[in-house]
Amino acid sequence: MRYIDEAALDDIALGATILGAGGGGDPYVGTLLAREQIRTHGNASLVELDSLDDDAQLCFVAVMGAPGVLIEKLPRVTEAVSALRALETYLGRPFTHIAPIEAGGVNALVPFSALSAGLPIVDADGMGRAFPSLEHVTPTLHGGAATPLSMADEHGNAMVLTTKTNQWSETLMRAATVASGCCNMIALYPMTGAQAKAWLIPGVITLAEELGRLVRTARAEHRSPADAVVAYRGGRTLFEGKVTAVNRSNTDGWTLGSVDLQGIGDWDGREMTVRFQNENIVAERDGEIVATVPDLIMLMTTDSGQPITAEEVKFGYRLSVLGIPCDHRWRTDAGLALTGPRAFGYDTDFRPVETTA
Amino acid sequence: MRYIDEAALDDIALGATILGAGGGGDPYVGTLLAREQIRTHGNASLVELDSLDDDAQLCFVAVMGAPGVLIEKLPRVTEAVSALRALETYLGRPFTHIAPIEAGGVNALVPFSALSAGLPIVDADGMGRAFPSLEHVTPTLHGGAATPLSMADEHGNAMVLTTKTNQWSETLMRAATVASGCCNMIALYPMTGAQAKAWLIPGVITLAEELGRLVRTARAEHRSPADAVVAYRGGRTLFEGKVTAVNRSNTDGWTLGSVDLQGIGDWDGREMTVRFQNENIVAERDGEIVATVPDLIMLMTTDSGQPITAEEVKFGYRLSVLGIPCDHRWRTDAGLALTGPRAFGYDTDFRPVETTA
Repeated sequence: MRYIDEAALDDIALGATILGAGGGGDPYVGTLLAREQIRTHGNASLVELDSLDDDAQLCFVAVMGAPGVLIEKLPRVTEAVSALRALETYLGRPFTHIAPIEAGGVNALVPFSALSAGLPIVDADGMGRAFPSLEHVTPTLHGGAATPLSMADEHGNAMVLTTKTNQWSETLMRAATVASGCCNMIALYPMTGAQAKAWLIPGVITLAEELGRLVRTARAEHRSPADAVVAYRGGRTLFEGKVTAVNRSNTDGWTLGSVDLQGIGDWDGREMTVRFQNENIVAERDGEIVATVPDLIMLMTTDSGQPITAEEVKFGYRLSVLGIPCDHRWRTDAGLALTGPRAFGYDTDFRPVETTA
Repeated sequence: MRYIDEAALDDIALGATILGAGGGGDPYVGTLLAREQIRTHGNASLVELDSLDDDAQLCFVAVMGAPGVLIEKLPRVTEAVSALRALETYLGRPFTHIAPIEAGGVNALVPFSALSAGLPIVDADGMGRAFPSLEHVTPTLHGGAATPLSMADEHGNAMVLTTKTNQWSETLMRAATVASGCCNMIALYPMTGAQAKAWLIPGVITLAEELGRLVRTARAEHRSPADAVVAYRGGRTLFEGKVTAVNRSNTDGWTLGSVDLQGIGDWDGREMTVRFQNENIVAERDGEIVATVPDLIMLMTTDSGQPITAEEVKFGYRLSVLGIPCDHRWRTDAGLALTGPRAFGYDTDFRPVETTA
């Protein structure tokens, strides 16, 4: 167990946004949510996944909404605690820990926004990156249920849901999220410590903090932040270019669209299109797909290594596009069935980003 | 207290469909739901509203969905009981009675579909007719809360909702209903016997049965069923004509559209348009509004007095259009604010149908 103080939040948010792969929300929003809580309630306790007792009781606490809406409307921390407490009431037992559902500038930090609940945070998540849908988590691969799931919205409404499948949780909660304004707090996937140890991906907060530190150090030393990330996590720089067009809408509770880049430097005369659904889903270079989910496709400013989320990318940005291998759990048949390109409507097979040209 | 047997269902369904004012669902569907339950569990116990003990515990049980979908997909009675039991579990106490939320071919009979729960049915409802939205009930006029509200859908999903306002219950449940296929059972407005006696409109089942009997008798005696309804309930025949056009869609969980009629007989050369949102909302004769919600606008076949719902009306039908006064509670300022024409987006004042030309 270690403590996370206010000073660590910037690195964690920066690194989590890199792991967010275009989604997971804006790091400024996430940092705002967490900073105030640490100032009020003291440093957060972060515990290693392996250290959990088998009978520990935990769940994910997350924001559900379109990232493009969240940058205009800050989620409220009180709803995170409301959702957590509602789920405890439904289950008839208290939680001992909470965990982030995914990496990402907001959702990696949402558990810190619930510090007033007094629970330690588990250094583990259900994605090892960010994904668009709440069923896109490693517990789904093991038959873990998203429900009972509780929701609290900004209007004071609350809901407890039980569904036959995790896909139904996504469908019904997405509809309710759109109807209530795309900015809900949810508590979901209640699980024991034994289940968490079998199901979750360890180390997301520590990894985010380390990635943030690497990028910050590279900036200070005038080295390439993108190279630092690739050297640490594997994968490759897929492209460097200038954004020439962004096509984006907030539709059905998603931030949907694509970004076009024209190459610069070594990539002069070449083109890339990255298509996103909250997160970046596929990268096409000169018309050929060179990276897909579940591998991480990240956009970073070439000079400063600032990760740019799908809702923030703008005409004129000079970006490095990185392809980074996903957690090995996602490259299994079951993992690819859940989060591979076909799950997002792309008629193409997954190829590990290390193996593409 | 009296018993309702299988033989009474046809009259109740017929009369409830007249009171449904274009909505509330198809009487054939409602009768199917109830008949099987009476055959299995015996006759239903129907109790008068005034006879309830103050500490009785009741709620409405209803189908939520677009009537245009319900005629293609029969709601399942097991979900009605599931929703009821889920609400009991949430509240931590059992219900002693259930009540219909509205008149209407399906929803007046949904409580009969829950006979396996073993509860008597209260002869009272929250509308005295049918309305499109779940907040359009007399309890809303008294500050009664729609929630906690439970939902059970055909897929095995379930939800318990608490909302700040009854309008939010409508908004969130409508979204969930559309997402899960427009055919959910809900249990809502938990209330005590004392509250029910103060809030509800008494006698809906008995009134429906009587209206059904009147129409059936008029048919047998070759008298005008429309005249029989008007003689019993007041109001007037607004038009008789042939349907020349129907404009209808199932949109956002509603059956929306309008029906145009050309006059026959005394109404030769004149025109009427009736606009509906599940229920009939306004009737325009020769371009002038002659009836609006909350008064009841009913379409019945001129010869046989068969009430025709908005999802069933077809080109060529010869219909009588009736305007019947609503319950007096809806003609108060609060009642009109909730269910008057402006509440449905029509920029016109309510005028009692007895006073229009």
